[in-house]
Amino acid sequence: MQILDYETYQQNVTNTAKATQMMQQNLDEQVLEIIRAVQERGDEAALAYTKKFDKAAITSLSVSEKEWNNAFNSIKTGQPKLFKALTAAAENIRQYQKKTKEEGFQFSPQPGIQLGQKITPLNRVGVYVPGGKASYPSTVLMDVIPAVVAGVDQVVITTPPRPDGSLDPVVLTAAKIAGATGVYKIGGAQAVAALAYGTESLPKVDKIVGPGNAFVARAKKWVFGDVAIDMIAGPSEICAFADNTVPPSYVAADLLSQAEHAEDATSICVTTDADYAEEVQKEIERQIPLLEREEIIRESIQANGKIIICDDEEQAIELINSIAPEHLQLMGEGAEEQVQKVKHAGAIFIGPYSSEPLGDYFAGPNHTLPTNGTARFSSPLGVYDFMKKSSTIHYSKERLLDYADTIITIADAEGLTAHANAIRIRKENNYASS
Amino acid sequence: MQILDYETYQQNVTNTAKATQMMQQNLDEQVLEIIRAVQERGDEAALAYTKKFDKAAITSLSVSEKEWNNAFNSIKTGQPKLFKALTAAAENIRQYQKKTKEEGFQFSPQPGIQLGQKITPLNRVGVYVPGGKASYPSTVLMDVIPAVVAGVDQVVITTPPRPDGSLDPVVLTAAKIAGATGVYKIGGAQAVAALAYGTESLPKVDKIVGPGNAFVARAKKWVFGDVAIDMIAGPSEICAFADNTVPPSYVAADLLSQAEHAEDATSICVTTDADYAEEVQKEIERQIPLLEREEIIRESIQANGKIIICDDEEQAIELINSIAPEHLQLMGEGAEEQVQKVKHAGAIFIGPYSSEPLGDYFAGPNHTLPTNGTARFSSPLGVYDFMKKSSTIHYSKERLLDYADTIITIADAEGLTAHANAIRIRKENNYASS
Repeated sequence: MQILDYETYQQNVTNTAKATQMMQQNLDEQVLEIIRAVQERGDEAALAYTKKFDKAAITSLSVSEKEWNNAFNSIKTGQPKLFKALTAAAENIRQYQKKTKEEGFQFSPQPGIQLGQKITPLNRVGVYVPGGKASYPSTVLMDVIPAVVAGVDQVVITTPPRPDGSLDPVVLTAAKIAGATGVYKIGGAQAVAALAYGTESLPKVDKIVGPGNAFVARAKKWVFGDVAIDMIAGPSEICAFADNTVPPSYVAADLLSQAEHAEDATSICVTTDADYAEEVQKEIERQIPLLEREEIIRESIQANGKIIICDDEEQAIELINSIAPEHLQLMGEGAEEQVQKVKHAGAIFIGPYSSEPLGDYFAGPNHTLPTNGTARFSSPLGVYDFMKKSSTIHYSKERLLDYADTIITIADAEGLTAHANAIRIRKENNYASS
Repeated sequence: MQILDYETYQQNVTNTAKATQMMQQNLDEQVLEIIRAVQERGDEAALAYTKKFDKAAITSLSVSEKEWNNAFNSIKTGQPKLFKALTAAAENIRQYQKKTKEEGFQFSPQPGIQLGQKITPLNRVGVYVPGGKASYPSTVLMDVIPAVVAGVDQVVITTPPRPDGSLDPVVLTAAKIAGATGVYKIGGAQAVAALAYGTESLPKVDKIVGPGNAFVARAKKWVFGDVAIDMIAGPSEICAFADNTVPPSYVAADLLSQAEHAEDATSICVTTDADYAEEVQKEIERQIPLLEREEIIRESIQANGKIIICDDEEQAIELINSIAPEHLQLMGEGAEEQVQKVKHAGAIFIGPYSSEPLGDYFAGPNHTLPTNGTARFSSPLGVYDFMKKSSTIHYSKERLLDYADTIITIADAEGLTAHANAIRIRKENNYASS
């Protein structure tokens, strides 16, 4: 794990300006071919890609009620501890998400004028859940529950099947606990295309959310605009700000938990104490060989692991804001005050015991978070992602006539004379009642 | 103006499923070339494209304080009525947008646990304002004010210059009234690229908003992910639901005001009264020749104008929800009750006097609205577009240890053992205070 000072770090960063979206065109040919095939040939193309990429020779993309219930019951009775843990996590997620649900409003700035905002759920949402060797029941809970809390009618999951055509029963169980209305055995760009444009089996949805590999991310970018998408997720990151009141073993364990996600994950420790930096580094080296996913972790830490020494807290906060980390742990003294100064971060974990996996699995706030500096402009996934707003405007005859000239003046200035006419016709020929 | 019944309309629509984003690849080669050139060569490329596309041989992209102030003063003294109208509109917009500003929250589900959501403004925003022959001061007000109300530090405008290198003084005046912090003479895909990646003159922004032509829309799609964007705007639409309590001349004038935007604008009247449909049609024909932008209007109405006759109110509302119109006018009896049944619409205008131009210019709610059916999943532009959320999580030592086993159980089930370890290390080696 590299230790470097603030200036050195900042110099390296500004030399590699981010233009990620422009750099990923290499996948476009393949992704576009898949999207077009699913658009044109529906289920048939979707099944063919599933055979090609997932090696699963299935004949139906839908998970039957029976298959779903069997999986649910097998986990409920066979793994009661896991079942209970998922149920408890779901309850926390539901509780937090309910707090984020917005209500519309109405107000009357003067008699005869009523303005408002109406907030309504989306009709149909698709949640992409990665599959293959991994199993992510937590992703199911985190992405489905906010949609259910929002009041979305249909919340369907797509996830790639295993070669024998089955799905992980834990994922299916989480889907039921979360309240999903359907599950489909399909992954990759073909899943995104099927959700965006609909097939014989899959409903056309209004929004696609959830993490996926590079193909999924790129396909989401292509269909964006025809459907909504949550965000284009990049590799995961953690930034932990700590001082010598925090056991270095805690900091090291948290950084390494991030590193196990993938070789391109980023783990950064920020501190103002050079001696402490060395202690964290030693702990990192001590713990790596003890961990199951040692190889991935070592590669990730070597490539992207950094301990950055800042002159003081002010500089550390400036650094954190420039990184805009997905996960930020404020672990040391004064953490509560530091929260106020943080401008950009996906989720902020406060104190030495708020370890990132607590948020990943259990606490309630979403673990689907903006990566790669996009916390500068994006939010955690939430109920607000599954609702949209409509403005309402009601003017009486009298009030419209009061302001008719003002409106006509602006319309004329823009050269939109038919706009002016729509107001003028009411002014000059006002025979209807309000 | 075509009159048709509900069934005929629905049949036509389902035969042309929307896959707009996939169909606009024809522009990509040119758009990508422009984006790459601006990324690589900055101002020099931006100035070259400005000369090529806007015929303006300028040497600086920035509008100077002097140029800006001169424009402002010339309108303030030379066109006092327009100046007053823009100021009044700005005040209404500000008042409405303030109502939509969200606050964060904190709650404690049990002692030792504190969860919350922190809401902060973006740092820098770019607003694209179309230029050329047209002048859109209302777009400036509508797009800049929500960002200013959100608390964004830098709100900059880009708009293409006229061939003599100048900008419309009315646009510059609106920019000052709205509270923009800078204006740049650049349009098209080159403006989007400059805002997304920064140049010597233009700041790299966090989000790009505002309407533009096909190049602008496509460039926004390409840079999306590296920066946030508002939406990919399509042609404008109106849908007016009316009955014989509403003068047909009002309905006609409103439909025609929409039609004057462009040949591809869509104007739809919905009614349950076949005789009334004929009256509206007659009014349309009567009014068209009286309007300045007759040619555009006639083409738009011929191509996309429709009066659709429904069996009853229920069917009409179903139709409206399937269209998810950008602008919806509920003009007839029972309008207030109909609002409750509308699921998808950008802005809803209630009653015979709430004509669309009232909302376009003056009432306060935003006129930047989701087009082309995207009201199914998108909202009007608002303060919420210029703020983002961070979750906060604070667990005490005791509470983390209470739930340690639950968290470890889920982490192990996902095979993420380093995640489990980060919790375990605190359980087994809990020597720090909370």
